[in-house]
Order: sequence, then structure tokens, then C-alpha cells
Amino acid sequence: MIKHATVPEETMQRMLVYLRELDCMLREGKETFSSQELAEILHMNPAQVRKDFSYFGGFGKRGVGYETEAMVRELRAILNLNRTWRIALIGVGNIGSALLKNPELRRQGFDIVLAFDNSPRVIGKRVGGVTVEDVADLAARVQAEKVELAIIATPVEAAPGVADVVIESGIKGILCFAPCQLHVPEGVRVVPVDIPMALGQLVYRLEEQ
Amino acid sequence: MIKHATVPEETMQRMLVYLRELDCMLREGKETFSSQELAEILHMNPAQVRKDFSYFGGFGKRGVGYETEAMVRELRAILNLNRTWRIALIGVGNIGSALLKNPELRRQGFDIVLAFDNSPRVIGKRVGGVTVEDVADLAARVQAEKVELAIIATPVEAAPGVADVVIESGIKGILCFAPCQLHVPEGVRVVPVDIPMALGQLVYRLEEQ
Repeated sequence: MIKHATVPEETMQRMLVYLRELDCMLREGKETFSSQELAEILHMNPAQVRKDFSYFGGFGKRGVGYETEAMVRELRAILNLNRTWRIALIGVGNIGSALLKNPELRRQGFDIVLAFDNSPRVIGKRVGGVTVEDVADLAARVQAEKVELAIIATPVEAAPGVADVVIESGIKGILCFAPCQLHVPEGVRVVPVDIPMALGQLVYRLEEQ
Repeated sequence: MIKHATVPEETMQRMLVYLRELDCMLREGKETFSSQELAEILHMNPAQVRKDFSYFGGFGKRGVGYETEAMVRELRAILNLNRTWRIALIGVGNIGSALLKNPELRRQGFDIVLAFDNSPRVIGKRVGGVTVEDVADLAARVQAEKVELAIIATPVEAAPGVADVVIESGIKGILCFAPCQLHVPEGVRVVPVDIPMALGQLVYRLEEQ
């Protein structure tokens, strides 16, 4: 059993990047790969790749390299991705609806089982197979349905209040599409997905070329 | 005039984070702030905040702090965000449609002026005020409309081919929702938005609590 707490944050992040690339290789039917190949695709140092892999025991064979499928399985186990995570979505607007309709999330083990909104125009509607419920019932429903993660896709003004309710319901992980810093207690993890900020990353050096 | 090329990547990234937080402050009517306050909200070191701000000349006044609105204006100029960027979206599925319908992007200076798909069921439709065109016409339309950025929101299998056409059309910045590594020439910038990977970041330490 690997003690995740001893693995640096940066290594865990890179594991996710490796997994994504190996998933691509699998789709393309590539059964084995070398650390050299993987490093080249990702513009990384091969020694770094080998070091990261060795963190979790050596899986490679000299002259053959690594088996893609075995490595994907191993990475999924390391990353807690070899199981299904039950998710509550709050805010069924454009982005929220898109997530509910996205079969790829479920395929990767992220199952949005509850959806909430505060608008009577949306509550009761069925979106992507899930019936939208009143956000006032969130805490009770999250506990009844044993939900572990939340996705907040509300307007930015509503996000901090929603986050408070989500945290009170016992959820420890929040994916947040609202462009604001959530104030959360120790032990709660927030990962932002901020599309304007991603576009911002794209342009800040663009005029210099 | 600031020479962006001399500013470390990490500083530019933090500038985006500062801007996002100051935008929040503006919405809440907070007219001034101190580096101490901003640092606390962002769980950063105040000395780091001051150092980053000093990169671009000192804007703060002793005892008063910084004026939020002036600082937002300054950061937008530094980050190339004091203008409108014309964008082509490729792939009008769930996520693509959500982006076209999102008024926040336009408000922040990101204007999706062209949308493309390869499905006859979607081509010709109007989504969020934009008429979806045939992806076969991309290069000509991008040049005619002086588009500078692309958002790729196609299925993963189509993304590399679409990226090639986008790059040939002269676009230098790509926001990519497809979970794969794009191979792009020097001078082209790709920023990924990978929702399953963001959920992955959320869960890899979650069971240890």
C-alpha cells in the first residue's frame, strides 16, 4: 500500500498527466511504451518520468518498456480512480447541463447522481438522466445518496453560499466553475475550473510573437 | 512599456489570480485593499504579492494600500486583457454550446465570433447568437474574420486534426477541452481545460482524511 501523503503534490499532478496520455495511447492501440517516448510526447525529462514511476515500484521491463494497460490500471489505483465517485452538481445552467449530458465523465468514474438549482423553471426537469432538485434539500439528499464530491456551476454571486451548504453536508471535495476564491476549512479540497482564466493564460504573451 | 518576456511565467500566472480576486472585490464594492489582505485571501505570502506588484512599478500608497479599480485596469493591461479577443470555436456539442451561450466570456473580452462543426445536424443552427458553419471552411473564415484564438471542444479523436487546421489558418493560441496532448509548432500556445483531470486532482488524496 502506497502512502500518498509522502508523495509530493507535483508528482501526483504528473501522474494525472501520464494517465491521460496513456489513455490516449490505449485508444490508439499502443500496447507498450518507453519512458523516453512518454517523456518526448509530454516535453519532459525521461529521468523524471522514470523517477516518478519508481515511486510506486518499478513496472518496466528492460528492452520492452512498460505495458500501457497495466500502467493505466496501476496509475488509476494510485490516483484513487479505480472506483466510482458519486457527485452532486449545483447550478444547472449552460455549463451544468453540459456536464450532466457528458458521458465521458461517467466513463471515467465520475457519476453525477444529484443535480440542484434554485430556479422553479429548472427544478423538476430531467437533464442527462438526472432530475433537478431544489437546492434547499441539498444537505439531506447528499447524505441520503452518499455523495462525496460537489461541482459548483452556479453564478459567481451564489457560489460562496452554496459552498458553505456543501461543506456542512459533509462533502470534502469541490470542483468550482465560479470565478471566485472559496473560503473552506482545513480538510476540504477545492479545484477551480476557470475558463476565462485559462483564456487569460493563452493571451498574456501572445502579442509579443 | 513592460517587457513581458522578462517576467517569469509564475508571476504572470499569479497576476491572473490577483485579477480574478480583485474583480470579486470590485463586485463587492471594495475600493481599496492592502497586499496583506489580498495575500490572506489567496493563502499567499504578502511579501510575494508586493514583489509581484513591484515588477510593474509600485501602485500602492503607504497607509492607504492599493485602489482596486486602478489595479484591475493595470493588471488587465499587463495581461493583454484590456481589449477584445476574437475566437473561433470548433465543436458545438454540449460544452461548445454552453460556451457560446455564456455572456461572461464576452464581458471579459473573449468574443466567440465563429463556430464550426462537421455534423449536418448542427451546421446552420444558431447557438448563442452565432451561426454554426462547416469546419471545412475554417481556414478561409478565420482569415476573413481576423480571428486570433481557437477553442477546441470536439471529441478527443477529432482534436489533433482540428488543431492542425487551426494552426495552418494562422491561429497562435488554442484552448483545448479534448483530453489529449496536442503537438504544435514553436510559437503556438495551448492551454488545456480538462474536467476529468480536474476531478482527478480533487480525489487523489481524498480517502486519506
